[in-house]
Amino acid sequence: MRMYDLILKKRNKQKLTKEEIEFIITEYIKGNLPDYQISAFLMAVYFNGLDFDELLHLTKCMTFSGKVFDLSSIDKPKIDKHSTGGVGDGVSLSLAPIVASCEICVPMISGRALGHTGGTLDKLESIPGFKVNLTEEEFVKQLKKIGVVIASQTENLVPADKKLYALRDTTATVDSIPLIAASIMSKKLAEGIDGLLLDVKTGNGAFMEEMKDAVKLARTMLTIAKKFNKKAVALITNMNQPLGEYVGNALEIYQAIKILKNEGPKDITELVVYESAKMLQLACIEKNFDSAKRKVEKQIVSGKALEKFKQLIEAQNGDPKIIDNPKLLPQTKFCEPVLSKKEGYVSFIDTKLVGTACCYLGAGRQKISDKIDHSVGIRIIKKLDDYVEKNEPLCYVYFNKQQKFEQIKSMIISAYKISSKKQGQPKLIHKEIC
Amino acid sequence: MRMYDLILKKRNKQKLTKEEIEFIITEYIKGNLPDYQISAFLMAVYFNGLDFDELLHLTKCMTFSGKVFDLSSIDKPKIDKHSTGGVGDGVSLSLAPIVASCEICVPMISGRALGHTGGTLDKLESIPGFKVNLTEEEFVKQLKKIGVVIASQTENLVPADKKLYALRDTTATVDSIPLIAASIMSKKLAEGIDGLLLDVKTGNGAFMEEMKDAVKLARTMLTIAKKFNKKAVALITNMNQPLGEYVGNALEIYQAIKILKNEGPKDITELVVYESAKMLQLACIEKNFDSAKRKVEKQIVSGKALEKFKQLIEAQNGDPKIIDNPKLLPQTKFCEPVLSKKEGYVSFIDTKLVGTACCYLGAGRQKISDKIDHSVGIRIIKKLDDYVEKNEPLCYVYFNKQQKFEQIKSMIISAYKISSKKQGQPKLIHKEIC
Repeated sequence: MRMYDLILKKRNKQKLTKEEIEFIITEYIKGNLPDYQISAFLMAVYFNGLDFDELLHLTKCMTFSGKVFDLSSIDKPKIDKHSTGGVGDGVSLSLAPIVASCEICVPMISGRALGHTGGTLDKLESIPGFKVNLTEEEFVKQLKKIGVVIASQTENLVPADKKLYALRDTTATVDSIPLIAASIMSKKLAEGIDGLLLDVKTGNGAFMEEMKDAVKLARTMLTIAKKFNKKAVALITNMNQPLGEYVGNALEIYQAIKILKNEGPKDITELVVYESAKMLQLACIEKNFDSAKRKVEKQIVSGKALEKFKQLIEAQNGDPKIIDNPKLLPQTKFCEPVLSKKEGYVSFIDTKLVGTACCYLGAGRQKISDKIDHSVGIRIIKKLDDYVEKNEPLCYVYFNKQQKFEQIKSMIISAYKISSKKQGQPKLIHKEIC
Repeated sequence: MRMYDLILKKRNKQKLTKEEIEFIITEYIKGNLPDYQISAFLMAVYFNGLDFDELLHLTKCMTFSGKVFDLSSIDKPKIDKHSTGGVGDGVSLSLAPIVASCEICVPMISGRALGHTGGTLDKLESIPGFKVNLTEEEFVKQLKKIGVVIASQTENLVPADKKLYALRDTTATVDSIPLIAASIMSKKLAEGIDGLLLDVKTGNGAFMEEMKDAVKLARTMLTIAKKFNKKAVALITNMNQPLGEYVGNALEIYQAIKILKNEGPKDITELVVYESAKMLQLACIEKNFDSAKRKVEKQIVSGKALEKFKQLIEAQNGDPKIIDNPKLLPQTKFCEPVLSKKEGYVSFIDTKLVGTACCYLGAGRQKISDKIDHSVGIRIIKKLDDYVEKNEPLCYVYFNKQQKFEQIKSMIISAYKISSKKQGQPKLIHKEIC
């Protein structure tokens, strides 16, 4: 088999066989195929897509390119959640402990900030001492003990995805629906889960800006999940404004604690509760959605979910005192409001621009090697459909470098559109697909 | 400037600026851009094309990526020919000496066999001692002395094309019209020519199988030529059967000598004369096509063209005795006919298959590193519309390895379709575009 012929086949819209896809992945992992052939292949996939059989073979080969976790010794249902990412999407931070407090095992492999979106691992690293790099042994041991882990991809988990993702990231082949689906699903399948909740974000702050793309990605991932006998549900959720009140790393940890103390902002709390309840349903812990939701709310009000978060922090070497004393989280030198230049209703927020502003502040990365400032971020005061007076704060910026503030301020002002008409509250959850 | 953004731009069908294209070519040549980004870019170009400005910038950057020949010290018009290649297309071998015998300077940079087509340089290397690798100094010195050179790309001529072509050849991005046009034209422009005849082959033995693609490529190259103030004409010619009577290396040298002795097969001789006359017109040596054609015929009949071929062979260290004694060319051990299994008119020849059969014999290459057997090849006896009796030879195969003959024979038999109806002679030249 020659890689040249396989590139040509894909380029000419011919279907690749199981053996051909296996050849590409296994030989690439072994170092027998050069990056320049794989990147040309990926670009051909970007243009011509993969049909369902091809996608299944690819996902399978990627999943089994390394070690698949064996969680059979754990007697609980194993359910995970994946979000395609957005601005202020710190849902996992409170959701994982809530769900784990309901006797569900949550083996969560998470990612880092890239582009305008945040990453769960970077947020957790705001907690002094918190360790996200676990060995497979540590991962499984902790799962057995407290039922929840949030960690980075271990050395030998889906190495094919690591290598392919790094290449896609430098060759403009990231935003291809089949490649995204194979990348996400191979990692989730390798975790050894029984069920998966997918949160596919759509809107001007999401990678899938168009609803039709979000739905397509969701359906693609669901079909893969079914083929692998995993229970799965997908939610298409709104990313036309930052989720919650805080965007940043330490700030989102602070917000997660507030959610777990039942003092969180309305929209993100609603989404956390909804998604947690869905996971309880996937685990068959509760008969129907309403009872699942009540159970979740009970875990929050009773403090059991917060207690689980504390266990999680302790298990991963973090300082649990941040829960009662948020001042122990990294703090900025400055905090200044950005004032509205006119009065009216917030009719549009360029969410990607808000995320990018956070990134410029130092909360995110342009390149994988960039260092993150965990303390910086933005507190969103005015959200869609809110009324704002002239000179009233749209948000507060937490920052350390005075010279950056003017630029950030003008980015935020240009991100907001204020109009004279009220447009109605945006929907939080657009669709549920299963 | 980041290569990532330029790949993304091309992938998203946005237009690249002059500076962006310069960046890609110059940084790639310097070794500052990795092959995997360039191959992804080339695949995006394959799918989204290049607009005319982009193509011009690319051609210009490639042309000036190395040294451009300065032939200003030569007082004659400098005219070259380029063919997109086919089976039995040994036109250049006789055309170059004919045109040079008319006081036109022919600075011909040629290529090698690849895939199912032959290469002028490999054919010339059938001549004992013939040297195709010249330095720039030797190239210009010989041009001044005898007015004709047929040689390989010198070290420093269009290095961008060498590097890009090698990458395209392994990443299935060769057959892109703008990339082909930029590759051909950058090399021809770097030769320092005044005018260029383009022979774009179409049909089942050509790279451009469809007429519309051939026309598009021809028009693209002509427009580039005009932008660089070069006179140019393109012919779209038939490659639905091998050209002439011989396919192979030494065999095509033998045929070129026959053409120059006015004993050549009808179709290839007609094309050689037509194209030579067109080059005389491009050089403004003759007022009209008819007088140019008469001049060309005179050069053949008088022996002046053959004399120029002899000078060419001597200048490049070859043995000129092959002209009078073709037995000095490499000879095969065996020569066997392939007999027709039925009677009727030849209605179709799978020309690519005939070329591939020659390649299997050893006349061509699968990989650039393959060694060529100069002696082997095929003598085509029956061409389109010829009548053939049952058991009459369709062709003769010249070969050295007995075990290969059966396979070659069955390839040739399957390449011919014999039908009961006469379909009329195929056109040799479809179109002339200027």
